[in-house]
Amino acid sequence: MNNLNPNPSYSITLRLKLPNRSGALASVINALGEGGGSLGQIDLIEQSRAISVREIAVNCASESHAQALIDLTKNLPDVELISAKDRTFALHEGGKISVTPKVAVKGQADLAMVYTPGVGRVSAHIGANPGDVYRYTIKSNTIGIVTDGSAVLGLGNLGAAGALPVMEGKAMLFKQFAGLDAFPICLATQDTEEIIQAVKWIAPVFGGINLEDISAPRCFEIEQRLQAELDIPVFHDDQHGTAIVVLAALINALKLVKKQLHQITIVINGAGAAGIAVGRLLKAAGAKNIILCDREGIVSHDRQNLPPSKAEFISAKTGQLRDALVGADVFLGLSSGNIVSPAEISKMATDPIVFAMANPIPEIAPELVTQSVAVMATGRSDYPNQINNVLAFPGILRGALDGRIKRITSAMHLAAAQAIASLITDEEIRSDYIIPSAFDDRVATVVAKAVCEMGAQ
Amino acid sequence: MNNLNPNPSYSITLRLKLPNRSGALASVINALGEGGGSLGQIDLIEQSRAISVREIAVNCASESHAQALIDLTKNLPDVELISAKDRTFALHEGGKISVTPKVAVKGQADLAMVYTPGVGRVSAHIGANPGDVYRYTIKSNTIGIVTDGSAVLGLGNLGAAGALPVMEGKAMLFKQFAGLDAFPICLATQDTEEIIQAVKWIAPVFGGINLEDISAPRCFEIEQRLQAELDIPVFHDDQHGTAIVVLAALINALKLVKKQLHQITIVINGAGAAGIAVGRLLKAAGAKNIILCDREGIVSHDRQNLPPSKAEFISAKTGQLRDALVGADVFLGLSSGNIVSPAEISKMATDPIVFAMANPIPEIAPELVTQSVAVMATGRSDYPNQINNVLAFPGILRGALDGRIKRITSAMHLAAAQAIASLITDEEIRSDYIIPSAFDDRVATVVAKAVCEMGAQ
Repeated sequence: MNNLNPNPSYSITLRLKLPNRSGALASVINALGEGGGSLGQIDLIEQSRAISVREIAVNCASESHAQALIDLTKNLPDVELISAKDRTFALHEGGKISVTPKVAVKGQADLAMVYTPGVGRVSAHIGANPGDVYRYTIKSNTIGIVTDGSAVLGLGNLGAAGALPVMEGKAMLFKQFAGLDAFPICLATQDTEEIIQAVKWIAPVFGGINLEDISAPRCFEIEQRLQAELDIPVFHDDQHGTAIVVLAALINALKLVKKQLHQITIVINGAGAAGIAVGRLLKAAGAKNIILCDREGIVSHDRQNLPPSKAEFISAKTGQLRDALVGADVFLGLSSGNIVSPAEISKMATDPIVFAMANPIPEIAPELVTQSVAVMATGRSDYPNQINNVLAFPGILRGALDGRIKRITSAMHLAAAQAIASLITDEEIRSDYIIPSAFDDRVATVVAKAVCEMGAQ
Repeated sequence: MNNLNPNPSYSITLRLKLPNRSGALASVINALGEGGGSLGQIDLIEQSRAISVREIAVNCASESHAQALIDLTKNLPDVELISAKDRTFALHEGGKISVTPKVAVKGQADLAMVYTPGVGRVSAHIGANPGDVYRYTIKSNTIGIVTDGSAVLGLGNLGAAGALPVMEGKAMLFKQFAGLDAFPICLATQDTEEIIQAVKWIAPVFGGINLEDISAPRCFEIEQRLQAELDIPVFHDDQHGTAIVVLAALINALKLVKKQLHQITIVINGAGAAGIAVGRLLKAAGAKNIILCDREGIVSHDRQNLPPSKAEFISAKTGQLRDALVGADVFLGLSSGNIVSPAEISKMATDPIVFAMANPIPEIAPELVTQSVAVMATGRSDYPNQINNVLAFPGILRGALDGRIKRITSAMHLAAAQAIASLITDEEIRSDYIIPSAFDDRVATVVAKAVCEMGAQ
């Protein structure tokens, strides 16, 4: 089943040769539109009296949809398909980041300063003054993005190599949104102790560590142990990044419906890294009544062999997710697509708040509950209120490095969430605007400042 | 003792306020020159009717020499020293490399391709087709520069942080000379097994590993084991980079003196990583008579407890370095400064070849033996014939990655040396031009080609 809209992640570029006569391009565009494609950039590559060569970017809804549009193009009269290229894959050719010198090495004099013999003076200085590694090397601005590839996005255990494109993308975002230099470390082990050991060995180069896509419950111990055993900040984005942005959005959503965090009932579906961390941060923010659900239903006293991370959330209520939702004020979905029905949502309290954050298919399609929920958010960019970690992690680590903070605390997570929420004034808040855009360039700055100030206290 | 010439590694920038009248600048320049400084760039920063502010770059011979010139400037009449800055340290502020996105993330459409959800398609593809990690990630162009900081340049055990400026410099050179993306990995362990384990865990991101500044004899086992246990090339530059460039220079030097490698006696002083590797490569190239010396003298049968790396070179001759040199055709110094006298050199065979490569002070100052040696080379850029590893390592790893070579063999080392030597034609060879400049842009290309072709055989 596919209920995605055409979107850039499935976009293709078609290079077509057309007769250079009026109506020829229009007929191609019509055909692609009728086939369900969403057209983007159209470039003229070359043109003669007889023909035009154009490149047309088309957003599709899936790989099979893209193939259908390619086949359709091949069958158009008078049109020759020169090439069809998957834009996402094309953009990944050769990788997405590079390591570049800050100054060019133009001759012997440069070489003598950036490399031998001059560099030896700097190395000897740091050997004698270890703290100055922050001043004379990349450490003060550099993040290691560490994964074992065990839980890559929602795709499961793809291993170190499969995780690398995500880590490269994350490195791009660290630079773009916070000016940080980040480098991917994809480990060829998924053993908890070995991951901890590996990170401790490679830590000297880095000013901070961002853990990524490591499956629960191992991720909890790995983060905790590393943070205790290293003198640089360690941040597990899948936990805390998500938690911070969810809390920020919830702060503003609650203003809209005029409810208080400590009075409401919140259902969290999904007890992985994100679900647990969201629950913990909401508790730290004052939430009193959280019902955590996993694949087996409500985490309650009648459940056997709960891992410690879930046992923190044992609820008096028992049953399945649908039972949890009855009378609840907030539903937070951190699970998988299409698992909640409109009928179940209709049993929630008045003015229900629904964050259906499974990606790419939300727990319930927003279209199905437009009339019945007060505030809806998803993990997707093509609906309002996107809950996107990029609102948190660049600023969090920017602030931690700027403040030379050794440990990122939950007080800092709370301060960051407040800072993100505060960018939308009470006058600006609307049901489709509870959280700033990922491209709101105030975000990383206020988050970094909040973290830095909290670290200085 | 200091016998260095003024050089860029000890250069300073003096910002001075001078009266704007004729003769004022000249008097400063004269004073700095008389003080032994070597003047570089002079920039006019601001000028009014009354004063000029200028920045003057001055090469010095040492830190104390730089301080003397600063003091001298302070005492000049009518001159105000606004600031004095160590250029090498200034250039290291904040580190020397950065990690940059290859494409900008300008909006949601870009985000959807380089990051979620689009990136998930690429990750899933690599999960199912692991070989395509070379196509869709940075791996195919990325080198890990790995050190434990145990033997940083000639400075000894400075640890991971102390080594980082050198590794950053190396990363700059990989990019500048071969277009490779290289990232420093400075390990917080100096245990052989732990280093091997760490590199194996972080290997997935890298297309090749460059080991650097790891002390002998551990470096031999680490390289050998990693090369056996990893499916990517592993290159220890301190060994093989040096060996390749020494052999290249020796090939051309022997042409000048019309001697054959298999007939000559070669003395190697220094049995660290470089000395051992040079000895091994010369043997592979056909040398029959190599005398290896370490701090205790000639490595011979009367020595006890020799490590295996030295035991390969047991010589029939006994005694000290001075005994080894009697009648030798070639002296290769990979040890420390000022340890050979002109009298000892005078006892070598006719047309002696001396490569005094200790840095920054050569085993014997070239000035002392100008008349008595046929060919002289050093590790320094301010004398002719600089033996510089940068002639080898960028091209070696470029070739290994281009050819998807799993193991860099000594046949490839030999081919690389021949390729470097061949850039100087028989007509061009002179006693002060046996090896191309580090900035000869043909070098990396021919080295890469030689490695690649040898790998394809």
